[in-house]
Amino acid sequence: MHHQEVLHLSTPGRGLTDLSPRVADVVARSGVTTGLCVVHCAHTSASLTIQENADPSVQRDLLAWLERLAPDGDPAYTHTAEGPDDMAAHLRTVLSSANESIPIVDGRLALGTWQALYLLEHRAAPHRRRVVVHVSG
Amino acid sequence: MHHQEVLHLSTPGRGLTDLSPRVADVVARSGVTTGLCVVHCAHTSASLTIQENADPSVQRDLLAWLERLAPDGDPAYTHTAEGPDDMAAHLRTVLSSANESIPIVDGRLALGTWQALYLLEHRAAPHRRRVVVHVSG
Amino acid sequence: MHHQEVLHLSTPGRGLTDLSPRVADVVARSGVTTGLCVVHCAHTSASLTIQENADPSVQRDLLAWLERLAPDGDPAYTHTAEGPDDMAAHLRTVLSSANESIPIVDGRLALGTWQALYLLEHRAAPHRRRVVVHVSG
Repeated sequence: MHHQEVLHLSTPGRGLTDLSPRVADVVARSGVTTGLCVVHCAHTSASLTIQENADPSVQRDLLAWLERLAPDGDPAYTHTAEGPDDMAAHLRTVLSSANESIPIVDGRLALGTWQALYLLEHRAAPHRRRVVVHVSG
Repeated sequence: MHHQEVLHLSTPGRGLTDLSPRVADVVARSGVTTGLCVVHCAHTSASLTIQENADPSVQRDLLAWLERLAPDGDPAYTHTAEGPDDMAAHLRTVLSSANESIPIVDGRLALGTWQALYLLEHRAAPHRRRVVVHVSG
Repeated sequence: MHHQEVLHLSTPGRGLTDLSPRVADVVARSGVTTGLCVVHCAHTSASLTIQENADPSVQRDLLAWLERLAPDGDPAYTHTAEGPDDMAAHLRTVLSSANESIPIVDGRLALGTWQALYLLEHRAAPHRRRVVVHVSG
């Protein structure tokens, strides 16, 4: 059995959005109790990551670290036509994940106690983002 | 057909543990000969990586490089309540993978000759870790 | 239904090769219209990434950035027997992905408008590479 839904999200600009509740809803609607959930972000300047869900300081430090590893407006970038945050966004997408695959056990995503699935918006401005959720079981 | 098992692992602290033999055992028990194996690490301070399985110097250099990219006790971290290695562990998890998806061909994981699937323990102290293995075919 | 094919690729040395057309052909041959496509790179010095497919400057900047984050011939490397680009290649593999999982919607990979799936060759010399494509539906 294969069940698919597309999530449409509005991001407020750079930052993390917890997708776990919406993905869990898709899994519930699929009726699958033993299976697999694949979540794919259909963009190259936004991505996914599974991170700590409890302390907001983790998200703050993650964003600051991404800025150090792939800074906005790095003078080494030649891809600059779409603004100083665009090439940085592409690189941060490589560092994180375009898709995540999470088993479904007893009708629930097998995320750990402290894990949540986040959409990482890497662009400074708000964007509309499309995330494809695929459930098989 | 969907077959799932949870692996419980004790890590000796920071370092790599080769999961390939245990995951191969799950695949064998599933009886699947053509299918897919998804391995998910249910933590945010341990993760997975597929790496070279032959020369111990690769693992040593990988750990040293992770320490350079996401150092313990970086003064920029604000998430410090759980020790100097906790935020570093979260960042190293982003750099590597929470889950890996490996086709099963002729009853075996389609890993290359030099590939092994490792659990990366990022915390300094020993931990109990939970890894969910999902096989479909 | 599970359909598998192995792609054999000759890379010209370090750089990106767009796998999207060849993977799309596998999906077409599978006959699957609703399902999942998993692509696995069976190497530890080549890997996969989903990146921007329009502007060549993105690929140039990505390669330059990988060279900064995991440089060839870093004096810190102890794994040097296979040349100055080998340990760098292993690290760049960790930064990117060994496998990608892409839903199949209406018989097509659910890649975004600007997404392509690339093989990243990290070694300086040309190599033969093996990529396993698994389709279920």
